[in-house]
Amino acid sequence: MQLSDLTHPNQLHGLSIAQLKQVACQIRDKHLETVAATGGHLGPGLGVVELTLALYQTLDFEKDRVVWDVGHQAYPHKMVTGRFNNFATLRQKNGIAGYLNRKESSFDHFGAGHASTSISAALGMALARDHQGENYKVVAIIGDGALTGGMALEAINHAGHLPQTNLMVVLNDNEMSISPNVGAIPRYLNKIRLSPEVQFIADNLNDQLKQLPFVDHSFTGSIKEGMKRLAVPKVGAVFEELGFTYIGPVDGHNIEELINTFNRAHQIVGPVLVHVATTKGKGYAIAEKDQVGYHAQNPFDLTTGKAKPSSKPKPPSYSKVFGDTLTKLAENDPRILGITAAMATGTGLDILQKNLPNQYIDVGIAEQHAVTMAAGLATSGMRPVITIYSTFLQRAFDQIVHDVCIQNLPVFFCMDRAGIVGADGPTHQGMYDIAYLRCLPNMVLMAPKDEAELQQMLVTGINYTSGPIAMRYPRGNGYGMPLMEEGWEELPIGKGELLRQGDDLLLLAYGSMVYPAMQVAEILSEHSLQATVVNARFAKPLDTELIIPLASQIKRVVTLEEGCLPGGFGSAILEAFQDAGVLVPVLRLGVPDLLVEHATADQSKAELGLTPPQMAEKILSQFAVPQPMGVTH
Amino acid sequence: MQLSDLTHPNQLHGLSIAQLKQVACQIRDKHLETVAATGGHLGPGLGVVELTLALYQTLDFEKDRVVWDVGHQAYPHKMVTGRFNNFATLRQKNGIAGYLNRKESSFDHFGAGHASTSISAALGMALARDHQGENYKVVAIIGDGALTGGMALEAINHAGHLPQTNLMVVLNDNEMSISPNVGAIPRYLNKIRLSPEVQFIADNLNDQLKQLPFVDHSFTGSIKEGMKRLAVPKVGAVFEELGFTYIGPVDGHNIEELINTFNRAHQIVGPVLVHVATTKGKGYAIAEKDQVGYHAQNPFDLTTGKAKPSSKPKPPSYSKVFGDTLTKLAENDPRILGITAAMATGTGLDILQKNLPNQYIDVGIAEQHAVTMAAGLATSGMRPVITIYSTFLQRAFDQIVHDVCIQNLPVFFCMDRAGIVGADGPTHQGMYDIAYLRCLPNMVLMAPKDEAELQQMLVTGINYTSGPIAMRYPRGNGYGMPLMEEGWEELPIGKGELLRQGDDLLLLAYGSMVYPAMQVAEILSEHSLQATVVNARFAKPLDTELIIPLASQIKRVVTLEEGCLPGGFGSAILEAFQDAGVLVPVLRLGVPDLLVEHATADQSKAELGLTPPQMAEKILSQFAVPQPMGVTH
Repeated sequence: MQLSDLTHPNQLHGLSIAQLKQVACQIRDKHLETVAATGGHLGPGLGVVELTLALYQTLDFEKDRVVWDVGHQAYPHKMVTGRFNNFATLRQKNGIAGYLNRKESSFDHFGAGHASTSISAALGMALARDHQGENYKVVAIIGDGALTGGMALEAINHAGHLPQTNLMVVLNDNEMSISPNVGAIPRYLNKIRLSPEVQFIADNLNDQLKQLPFVDHSFTGSIKEGMKRLAVPKVGAVFEELGFTYIGPVDGHNIEELINTFNRAHQIVGPVLVHVATTKGKGYAIAEKDQVGYHAQNPFDLTTGKAKPSSKPKPPSYSKVFGDTLTKLAENDPRILGITAAMATGTGLDILQKNLPNQYIDVGIAEQHAVTMAAGLATSGMRPVITIYSTFLQRAFDQIVHDVCIQNLPVFFCMDRAGIVGADGPTHQGMYDIAYLRCLPNMVLMAPKDEAELQQMLVTGINYTSGPIAMRYPRGNGYGMPLMEEGWEELPIGKGELLRQGDDLLLLAYGSMVYPAMQVAEILSEHSLQATVVNARFAKPLDTELIIPLASQIKRVVTLEEGCLPGGFGSAILEAFQDAGVLVPVLRLGVPDLLVEHATADQSKAELGLTPPQMAEKILSQFAVPQPMGVTH
Repeated sequence: MQLSDLTHPNQLHGLSIAQLKQVACQIRDKHLETVAATGGHLGPGLGVVELTLALYQTLDFEKDRVVWDVGHQAYPHKMVTGRFNNFATLRQKNGIAGYLNRKESSFDHFGAGHASTSISAALGMALARDHQGENYKVVAIIGDGALTGGMALEAINHAGHLPQTNLMVVLNDNEMSISPNVGAIPRYLNKIRLSPEVQFIADNLNDQLKQLPFVDHSFTGSIKEGMKRLAVPKVGAVFEELGFTYIGPVDGHNIEELINTFNRAHQIVGPVLVHVATTKGKGYAIAEKDQVGYHAQNPFDLTTGKAKPSSKPKPPSYSKVFGDTLTKLAENDPRILGITAAMATGTGLDILQKNLPNQYIDVGIAEQHAVTMAAGLATSGMRPVITIYSTFLQRAFDQIVHDVCIQNLPVFFCMDRAGIVGADGPTHQGMYDIAYLRCLPNMVLMAPKDEAELQQMLVTGINYTSGPIAMRYPRGNGYGMPLMEEGWEELPIGKGELLRQGDDLLLLAYGSMVYPAMQVAEILSEHSLQATVVNARFAKPLDTELIIPLASQIKRVVTLEEGCLPGGFGSAILEAFQDAGVLVPVLRLGVPDLLVEHATADQSKAELGLTPPQMAEKILSQFAVPQPMGVTH
């Protein structure tokens, strides 16, 4: 079987174990080769090659449904569902997406990108099936990290209460989120895996059984499972008490044992949880050894595992500047606590973790808990700095409203990956934070123009104790601005910065759009239009003292933001102008009301018309025509 | 001890059991008398009178911290923390709030209103305490219903992983949310309570021990607990496996046993869960018998338990019209599934439940799961109608973004209690939904002007299968409009309704503000200003074909909405006008950027200047002065 010939996963049916092992090798080779070239998620997919092949042996893709949680581990799934041949386009514009996507393939039964959603979605499918009198299998595959997310536990609570609703949950237990897992549930799973009885059976039984000449080895799995349950009736007791039939733990790299286990699990009525022990990065020794480092990778050399040197050295990322600066501030202020929801490396909080572990908290994939815990810390004189990607902070929206803003508690939200994120695509774009936070009373919103201003805003946020405050900053590298090691000055709340003066146009830019606005002003200048440029710094409160007189005087305004236009920064400007009785034309530049697909950030910006030359062109075309109706000079 | 003399809960210390029982009587009397007069939550508070008194015997309110989940059961807490004498002002403007509020009392250590937040907040306080080298107790009290909310489980996962962090969680197990509980966790709790060993000990041990002359009866509790754990080592195994020391179940109405148990639990290092079995409505037979009906009440007659007849008959509530109409639609369309997150009675879905139980799903307090499950149902040809209060839908914001909008799945969100909610106060105001949903691609937003239009929009939403759609409608009664039993016509998506024509002003009203806008127009007419009134019907997409030409022609616009002004409906109008090049003055009327405290809805509206005469006055003052700068006619 050559995977390049495979167009439907049912074609895997009937392959021998030996043939499946060959297919596994093809998947691993393609997986490694592609990610080494394009970048992407490495460890998660390598860990589920056998799980995928074995599970798909037991499913009929003409009718059965599979929901992969998160989707970053679904590269093997993609390769056996018709996407092997163009897999090299992974995470590139118009290429294969890095996550699941219903638009990309009819075999992607449910999209994902964020964690902990799969059991809920699968239960919905299972309930629909039963309502419609159909009869097919529905399987959710969820990691042990994602299982600590509250909504996965909500789904288990619900599914466990429906003894007649057939639903298989495959727990892909690799003992990791991106970082090692946090919490009592992962510890409990570990306890199961390491229980002496399970270990004894795992270590000895296969060999002993294989020595028996008359044993049909396809039953080895059943025998082992039976013995496990006999020997240790408490294995999986938590899941059993919650209404699931528990089966496991199963060796996630033994195809034969997996197939037998899945087949047996399919025969069980009601919800069943199959606990599969896998190794993240399996088959690539370098990744197995450094599971955090090889969760996801930029392009790298397969032999050494080292990142390919970029053509020129880059300035430090916003995340690194954030982590470095926060660590320095925390050294002198024991009230500071950095909080992450399983994103230490992505947010730069790993720097705090290494240097000041007592001032660092990883709560696991649990954004809701993280925010309300931070609110609790804030009531007690601590300075919680909660660092969550813009897109993931959506998961704690009510906690921001209910526990932080209504009580006006000084929690500092630091939103990394705000704006366009590039290859991760629609599920990860940080588009909505300005809109969903701007409507909340007591909230202060700010965004730095560069990494040096991020340092100042970090100090500003920590010193601001009157209520909640949030800072957004983009994915990627700064501008190489000189950084200070200490002595940062805080910025006045709600005050912008006048960067450039000109009489013809007023450019109001927020955060990552400040430097592009300066470039736009240069281009406009070449067309004899002189622009004033304001770095807004704060989207809430707006610096109306600065902006309103400028707008009244200059009378043509452009707003620039890297976020959704509906309800965003430009919308706030429109409100402020109307409230002040200033009626001037305002061109709002930002991300329109659509989903931004995966591509490089530069490609996305070009497609959205957000490069400086494109923006200058739009401005010229808008303000070259006669003034809109209703206004005169 | 007279509660009217008590100013600090520590004054309860040292009271005998007999005295505490007298205090309990005083609390129950005041509780019943007040709620019968003012309305409010009845069953939850009556169930925790002994729990509160016993727990507070073991706490020092000079330093210890208590976090009550939800807060609707905290009336006894309020009475023993200095609010007994003015308790009759409950839920009235400037009176005692119906939930906890840090501004109201320094003994309200953490506010609430929504469920499932207490363990997270308490853990934050406990971590702060340990960081600061302090030594005091932190207790969270959470109901069995709230425990099914994902964030509570996230918090347990985290706390269970911190064996050195002292934290007591009191599980107030009354076997109910507002409705009977849903899920495997409540069933598990029930199993513990009903296990033969626990029953045997509970039934027999007290009597037997009391017959022994030499037993110090203050130790009875310990002995019972020890025997329970000896006899049934598995009791509470789930919590034990998750890192908590489990103690219970304890009779929640036996003050002596409760005090002994809490005292013992305080001595345990690390997280401890005390499982207390209580009866909702305890001490008021009518409420004990009908726990759903007496969860919360309008003013009622204490003797009969019946609601006091209102002065005149009222039209049906929006919720009832919703429930009735959905049930009729569902009768003819088996694809329709009504989904609630533990709010069957509040949303009117109890009508569907009674009539078509197979087309009704209560997922428990689990809004996140509800939304993604609905997305799963939508992928499989069902028509999920998910009915959640505006304020609670905030809890599923990311699921709306990630699972519904990004995948453009036809899920129909019906948001009851949108706008000003009255006595429930800031945590329950439905202020933000327009803003937080308007920024999302693929979303359609609508709001009916009255209960008859709600019927039409319900049909519209069910027939709309191109993607997600949401409808918001207010708390309370409709206008008594004629309702249809069948034959409702769907409305065209994105089309408004022209209700009145006039040349001087354009009033654009959304949902519950349409009739008030008509009243405003009448008042303006008395001042010789003739207004056009448009029922917008849709906030997204806006009916720009109707609105833009009207605005260009009439040139003075007022927007009216019952929601937050930042990012709301008026903000959408500003964006549409600017995008169309229409520069006209727009007065946005709605809820400004502040928290609306508890009061009657009418009082809140008057305070916010949102009564028709107040709005007319604002309009007159804005548009009587010369036109703002930058504009001429």
